[in-house]
Amino acid sequence: MTETSEYTPPKVWVWNKANGGQFASINRPIAGPTHDKDLPVGKHPLQLYSLATPNGQKVTIMLEELLALGHKGAEYDAWLIKIGDGDQFSSGFVEVNPNSKIPALMDRSGPKPVRVFESGSILFYLAEKFGAFLPTDPATRAECMSWLFWQMGSAPYLGGGFGHFYAYAPTKIEYAIDRFAMETKRQLDVLDRRLAESRYLSGNDYTIADMAVMPWYGGLAKGWQYGAGEFLAVHEYKNVLRWADEILARPAVKRGRMVNRISGDPSEQLHERHDANDFETKTQDKLAVQS
Amino acid sequence: MTETSEYTPPKVWVWNKANGGQFASINRPIAGPTHDKDLPVGKHPLQLYSLATPNGQKVTIMLEELLALGHKGAEYDAWLIKIGDGDQFSSGFVEVNPNSKIPALMDRSGPKPVRVFESGSILFYLAEKFGAFLPTDPATRAECMSWLFWQMGSAPYLGGGFGHFYAYAPTKIEYAIDRFAMETKRQLDVLDRRLAESRYLSGNDYTIADMAVMPWYGGLAKGWQYGAGEFLAVHEYKNVLRWADEILARPAVKRGRMVNRISGDPSEQLHERHDANDFETKTQDKLAVQS
Repeated sequence: MTETSEYTPPKVWVWNKANGGQFASINRPIAGPTHDKDLPVGKHPLQLYSLATPNGQKVTIMLEELLALGHKGAEYDAWLIKIGDGDQFSSGFVEVNPNSKIPALMDRSGPKPVRVFESGSILFYLAEKFGAFLPTDPATRAECMSWLFWQMGSAPYLGGGFGHFYAYAPTKIEYAIDRFAMETKRQLDVLDRRLAESRYLSGNDYTIADMAVMPWYGGLAKGWQYGAGEFLAVHEYKNVLRWADEILARPAVKRGRMVNRISGDPSEQLHERHDANDFETKTQDKLAVQS
Repeated sequence: MTETSEYTPPKVWVWNKANGGQFASINRPIAGPTHDKDLPVGKHPLQLYSLATPNGQKVTIMLEELLALGHKGAEYDAWLIKIGDGDQFSSGFVEVNPNSKIPALMDRSGPKPVRVFESGSILFYLAEKFGAFLPTDPATRAECMSWLFWQMGSAPYLGGGFGHFYAYAPTKIEYAIDRFAMETKRQLDVLDRRLAESRYLSGNDYTIADMAVMPWYGGLAKGWQYGAGEFLAVHEYKNVLRWADEILARPAVKRGRMVNRISGDPSEQLHERHDANDFETKTQDKLAVQS
């Protein structure tokens, strides 16, 4: 494919299904369901429909952190949504999230089910419901929510911008890679400066802001995403790395990152999570492999 | 500029200041201030530093709605931040928003100032502070917050994706325009389906979710943004248009949209807002021009 300055967009955009690169089959210009299928419902109050992308990890980390704090009401079933297969376009999924993106949560603990979509909204919902990981002091609370919203508004430039054009688009388009690499580096520097002055994003305490930012920017700084560690010189962001390592060492984070994971080391993949003991089985698998 | 499939990114990305299109001068790969300058501080409890972009309008609409409800504590000074001139990189602005984007709010009503950044975070902060425009029933509250977060995570594809490549990039890149046009249309359809079943985004009541979504997607549906109305066939989204027209008719929304505006009809531009009477003066100007 060649892009030249002579290209002129048509008067009215037309859906060309041949375009789109690696994710062409799941990108559509229309919303709504493509097929009728109900979602499964398990035994716990919270039903999560997700996949272990950075957005998915945010919520499973939060749920595991809540359980580690002793909040039994945070028990959950985590069902796998294979976005490559179009599971997010089922009628059941669209009822929970009309935007057809993971993660989506249904809280069945009350008299009528409550749907919650968008990872940031789910983190906030759980934080408010359980009174945890969201400061109550006005200044620290504002700082936490500002960084949470910062993540939601910034990561599309990292994922849908840089990641797409650097790793997934059918051709390498220099202008687009350059534009989004610059913005991604700026975002990493924003975080690095904040984490030079503060242990966590909102202050001395670990909050939902850290849980939202770490899977995206911690993973990027660790060189895990898009094979772009060297390209973005991620070793420069030393405070991000210090903070990410501290969070990644938490047992609840280790568990949360395993849930709904379907790639990488098989002993780190817990395709679905329906019971706290599900992790034990995986740990035994791992020990058996290592011995 | 020609993009070919032979382009191979370098091992390590390098800042080429010649790239970047219309906004090259304000896009940087590093954060932090570029110059020392304090922000002005006016007489009111709330100090807003902003510009009447869609993100800026969200907050001035909210403040005008709060004042219309009788919340005198929502009195504010709105200072102009000219992002084309780099005002967002002053040391004073970076202290309020380390991400160097408008809008940024300083609440000086308490014993120590509270900074709030990211438009979604500011809307939430004000809603919580004044107990307004954010439902308290758990299901409706979750719906409101989900749509608020939806807007924050979706609009980068509209603004930083579609708008940039369709209207501002130095060359028209077919793949990028196509990718982001498809996603923008999908987002409009998500909203259109929701607004077919519900008067407002979270239900029967007008909330911060509507205030966040309307300046972006209402403006787009009205054909105001990027000259892209025909290209995106925005007339198809009839429920979005019905909802946008209803909101745009609100007096507080009309006032909010004027604040920090520096383009378009001069009688609609209130460069800075320091007093409720500032709008009256503009209305008199307009009547004088029309008579």
